Amino acid sequence: MPPAPPAPSQNLRIAVSAGDPLGIGPEVIVKALADEGLRSQARFLIYGDEAPLLRAADRAGITPFWRSPAHDGPGCSLVEVRALPDDPHAPTPSAPTAAGGAASFAYLDAAITAAGAGAADGIVTAPISKEAWHLAGIDFPGHTEVLARRFEAPRSAMLFVGPTLRVILVTIHVALRDVPRLVTRHRVFDAIDLGAQACRQLGIASPRVAVAGLNPHAGEGGLFGDEDKRQIAPAVEEARAAGIDATGPHPGDAVFLAAAQGKHDLVVAMYHDQGLIPVKLLDRDRAVNVTAGLPIVRTSPAHGTAFDIAGRNLASPASMAEALRLAVRMARGKTGKPASG
Amino acid sequence: MPPAPPAPSQNLRIAVSAGDPLGIGPEVIVKALADEGLRSQARFLIYGDEAPLLRAADRAGITPFWRSPAHDGPGCSLVEVRALPDDPHAPTPSAPTAAGGAASFAYLDAAITAAGAGAADGIVTAPISKEAWHLAGIDFPGHTEVLARRFEAPRSAMLFVGPTLRVILVTIHVALRDVPRLVTRHRVFDAIDLGAQACRQLGIASPRVAVAGLNPHAGEGGLFGDEDKRQIAPAVEEARAAGIDATGPHPGDAVFLAAAQGKHDLVVAMYHDQGLIPVKLLDRDRAVNVTAGLPIVRTSPAHGTAFDIAGRNLASPASMAEALRLAVRMARGKTGKPASG
Repeated sequence: MPPAPPAPSQNLRIAVSAGDPLGIGPEVIVKALADEGLRSQARFLIYGDEAPLLRAADRAGITPFWRSPAHDGPGCSLVEVRALPDDPHAPTPSAPTAAGGAASFAYLDAAITAAGAGAADGIVTAPISKEAWHLAGIDFPGHTEVLARRFEAPRSAMLFVGPTLRVILVTIHVALRDVPRLVTRHRVFDAIDLGAQACRQLGIASPRVAVAGLNPHAGEGGLFGDEDKRQIAPAVEEARAAGIDATGPHPGDAVFLAAAQGKHDLVVAMYHDQGLIPVKLLDRDRAVNVTAGLPIVRTSPAHGTAFDIAGRNLASPASMAEALRLAVRMARGKTGKPASG
Repeated sequence: MPPAPPAPSQNLRIAVSAGDPLGIGPEVIVKALADEGLRSQARFLIYGDEAPLLRAADRAGITPFWRSPAHDGPGCSLVEVRALPDDPHAPTPSAPTAAGGAASFAYLDAAITAAGAGAADGIVTAPISKEAWHLAGIDFPGHTEVLARRFEAPRSAMLFVGPTLRVILVTIHVALRDVPRLVTRHRVFDAIDLGAQACRQLGIASPRVAVAGLNPHAGEGGLFGDEDKRQIAPAVEEARAAGIDATGPHPGDAVFLAAAQGKHDLVVAMYHDQGLIPVKLLDRDRAVNVTAGLPIVRTSPAHGTAFDIAGRNLASPASMAEALRLAVRMARGKTGKPASG
């Protein structure tokens, strides 16, 4: 059972779910939050078992810095979610396991409950393993779907925020053959609208939103497919009528370069590879994954559980640190709350 | 009527079709071949009307350097294809016209006839306007289709060669909804095989060919579409059995970064935007377009007719120069012929 969530706060609070305890999640959280400057930006509440955090700190030579719930204060607190067997020296294979899946789901569940109760303004999620969730009998394909369900979000979208590009996706993890029929005027409008909202939370007052086409050359006037004309162009018109500075559909092979050159603040991509190829080429692992459309801010690092290097003090906390910073920035933009103090 | 082609040669000959005379084709040809070092690499035969070339040279302050067919020799010759009205001072709107379409098709036709007769080892095509061809009643959507038809090539593919990436496409100018059914084992194998051949012509003895997946995460084991398993993986196996160092399917959002980092010599992309997004982001206009699978080498610059800047001496010849150099290099790799001499 998750502990009772802390009470709502006037200061900015960010919940951090520890992710799969056998992956690199606990390690990157400990390493990222070891930075006092980062800790001073909000009150961070880590949701997880303490044992993996202590092991990661020990391996990294970091003195545990988190407070127990009894000593809640500015900076970083542990909201312990006891989901692992008690023995901290139990063998921990770095692989997907039912125990790891159940634990990572319990951490997420507790963090969501806290945020839903107003005790956190944002959630940063360390990586889970889809396979471990499956082994634990958890049917959700990933964080995004759990969050959308728990927050009863009628519309949500995956957004990537990197130093070079901001990209929001209309469709994500579906077969390419299913993409054209999913690219509807409504879905495209929602992605434009949610992306523009997220940009405003990032401090861009009037974001310039470029919408990519679905087909080569954005359909070249209907020569290669009609979705660009029939679904995407009307969604762009609808967004403009709603006061959003949206343009397009732009040819997919030109719009990302234009965005990288500063001509657009956000690109709306129609499908996974169209959006992720440019993000991964230009921003590599510096891009932070954001779920747009939830009542709270949610970010996560770009990497996965990385079982292959887990437990060896080899993981870089850079992406997690970016995800934590971005959550603070967006939650501040959304709520107007000050940093912890 | 095209003139009679020159006789076959023991030395390397490259035919250059001048493209739409109202676009920037004549200008970039004149500027690129004004470089004596480039001219010394092969015998270049320009197929076009002389008037637009003279006008471009005059505007650029270049003394006409091409020889007439009567004085054929090393370097650069004009094989005049009279396809424009005689008056060189006729108004020349920089826009698609029937006259420009007919002329650019006549230049291409003459260059193909020459190459087909063995008088040229390669063709470099300056840009044509699809719309101008349409106005002239020419039904082909582009150069590639004309070349494939005229050379009766049973299989051909579009390849991009840039300083960072080499990418060959399985499908090109089709609606995205038609892509999944066109990604067949045979088509994927042909693209791997043609791409590997082209790499060998470029001097890569045993090219490492990475094949991109069609679906997100290359289908994630069949979770998002089965084409990766059912069509692409068997094509990779077939290529390996044929002695090609092929791997994949690789996730589309990872394979181009790996190629840019030097892990692969060629990426086989399944569709237009998947291949062109990375090419245009990393190599911009330095990528040369190659038609693989023809009996002769064919290259073209990455840009179009650029009617908006035509006739103003504003066009950069860099991409045309790259296309000319690449044609020489590939034709030498293919034929073993020496430079002109």
